[in-house]
Amino acid sequence: MHLEIKRSYFTEQLNDVLKAISNRTALPILSGIKLEADNDKLVLIGSNGEISIEITIPTEVDNEEILTITEPGEAVLPARFFTDIVKKLAGEYVQLKSTDQYSIQVSGGKSNFVISGSNPDEYPLLPEVNNEESLKIASSALKTIINETNFAVSSSETRPVLTGVNWQFFENEIHFTATDSHRLALRKLKDKSHAIEIKNAIIPGKALHELNKIIEDSDEDVEINFSQNQVLFKYGNLRFISRLLEGNYPDTSRLFPENYETNLVINNDEFLKAIDRVSLLALESGNSAIKMTIDSNRVVLSSNSPEIGNVEEEVTSVDLEGEPLQISFNSRYMMDALRAVPEEEVSIEFFGTMKPFTLQSNTSNDVIQLILPIRTY
Amino acid sequence: MHLEIKRSYFTEQLNDVLKAISNRTALPILSGIKLEADNDKLVLIGSNGEISIEITIPTEVDNEEILTITEPGEAVLPARFFTDIVKKLAGEYVQLKSTDQYSIQVSGGKSNFVISGSNPDEYPLLPEVNNEESLKIASSALKTIINETNFAVSSSETRPVLTGVNWQFFENEIHFTATDSHRLALRKLKDKSHAIEIKNAIIPGKALHELNKIIEDSDEDVEINFSQNQVLFKYGNLRFISRLLEGNYPDTSRLFPENYETNLVINNDEFLKAIDRVSLLALESGNSAIKMTIDSNRVVLSSNSPEIGNVEEEVTSVDLEGEPLQISFNSRYMMDALRAVPEEEVSIEFFGTMKPFTLQSNTSNDVIQLILPIRTY
Repeated sequence: MHLEIKRSYFTEQLNDVLKAISNRTALPILSGIKLEADNDKLVLIGSNGEISIEITIPTEVDNEEILTITEPGEAVLPARFFTDIVKKLAGEYVQLKSTDQYSIQVSGGKSNFVISGSNPDEYPLLPEVNNEESLKIASSALKTIINETNFAVSSSETRPVLTGVNWQFFENEIHFTATDSHRLALRKLKDKSHAIEIKNAIIPGKALHELNKIIEDSDEDVEINFSQNQVLFKYGNLRFISRLLEGNYPDTSRLFPENYETNLVINNDEFLKAIDRVSLLALESGNSAIKMTIDSNRVVLSSNSPEIGNVEEEVTSVDLEGEPLQISFNSRYMMDALRAVPEEEVSIEFFGTMKPFTLQSNTSNDVIQLILPIRTY
Repeated sequence: MHLEIKRSYFTEQLNDVLKAISNRTALPILSGIKLEADNDKLVLIGSNGEISIEITIPTEVDNEEILTITEPGEAVLPARFFTDIVKKLAGEYVQLKSTDQYSIQVSGGKSNFVISGSNPDEYPLLPEVNNEESLKIASSALKTIINETNFAVSSSETRPVLTGVNWQFFENEIHFTATDSHRLALRKLKDKSHAIEIKNAIIPGKALHELNKIIEDSDEDVEINFSQNQVLFKYGNLRFISRLLEGNYPDTSRLFPENYETNLVINNDEFLKAIDRVSLLALESGNSAIKMTIDSNRVVLSSNSPEIGNVEEEVTSVDLEGEPLQISFNSRYMMDALRAVPEEEVSIEFFGTMKPFTLQSNTSNDVIQLILPIRTY
């Protein structure tokens, strides 16, 4: 391998590939980044066995020549170490050149590094994902969907399927569901164009979290392909592959109650800040439960801890109807849900002290957040 | 106690006092902040037993009334919890009001907190420091002195005196010395005005670090008073008290060699970046040693690790004279020292492969950094 590449552009791409690479890996070669230089492109590959990222760098970007390949070749180099070097080198360009036995000389400015690598033939092949089960979503829409649901996946491995987001494919709609069994986020997307024949796929929350960091908030399409065990996201020069979670996702459709007893419409930001304040006392006493009392015309948040003190804050409602109510909930779940309803006004429907309640935008029902109360009464 | 205070100003002062307060304290009451409200001022006190901070808030600041005291009184409240509440409350002002038995009601916007406190009579008295042994330094100069020396104190408690900076008082000069026995920083300050009769005082590095975060880069004077065991820094409405370290500070005056064998003058920033790059390889192989080779007209940094690779970088010298040299040093110590010589060009004097070398500004000898080489040859 012998090539020269624009350092700033190369650093960005390396940083993206790093998102799939872990130093704590059972397979030591996976702590490396694979470089495949061709006559007219350089491919970067990183993988932690669960997520794999492949980025193809062309010789020209926006009519500027950023890559000159003098001699094709392959290499596997320690990923973080190599990226740090490229980042800190002087000079606008960096040169890579094979020396003996898997080693690569990395030069820029007046620096010359020689880095020992691994045998590229030992790097595992990335999973194959065919193009049959295919779907397109604009990257900005995909980011929104991830932001509205991904926070609610379970962080516990007790029920592995709950660590993922369940994508359900209907004829004209896709549903995205995440739950840790204490709260649930459901996003619905109207989509008539997809060619997906499977019923559902469970995508690991960690994969969606990393994908969200790489794709930009633009109207460029992300093409998504599903195979038996894998999902592939294609976005510009990026291929992002994740394994799917195996197992049956619980049926959550019956969780949503109908006919609320109490409906509260409230300013999202003001409510979020009030809960943040009141939760200070709950957190100081080592839990996250705060109490809400609704009577005919007042909404009061409160928390009480004999050792530490107590707090009460009245919040102003935009609209309030139905039965009086006392309910306790986890303040963090409430704040997460409010942040995931990106509208100025939120409608909260309650079905009684012991029943789950739901949050929705006051103007759309694309996204619905459900929270189980805490039994304190 | 019953008072009202401007929230933004109060938050800033609380944040400063917090710098002396630790949650991991042997004396539980010290995790609290003490408030003493008088007819015309509010005093905030925090202490971890080693550092104490006292801030006096007047009723007016810059002709604006920021504090109204309706009823004097004292309280001790959980410091971080109380500060978080004040920070997150709504409204421009916050009200504090004693309720029963050491509790304080904290109100702002529509929030009402009641916080349980401790008995203010049980809060320890701050050490007394008299005004006899006194000295004034502009806060900007004091910050510079701390930045140039404090990084070199020892982080190990093996020799406690080395965790502090030694202030030595001469008739017309003050010397500030910090060393962890691998490197040393010495700052000299011409000062004829001081009225200090003690020979020296060892101030804990941790105290100077916190003080540095509080005082601003201005020409306002800091008045410094020494007593037997304590030092007091007075700055505006702040009193910052630290214990002094007991014991004899080693005599470091004989460490500085004369008549260099090799003298290298080099651009500070370029040299720092080159060392930062070359150290990447050393760090990847788990140590910090890099090698420098000087011959008649070339200066080359290098590092070599059989498993990981090697690196070589030539650096451009501004001036170079004397004997050829090979020397190894800790890259972190070199970078720390370069950052503490705040001049564009640095003069480095070497006295042979095994002897300590020194860094100084090319234009002034107020500050001198000394580093012991690593024996690798």
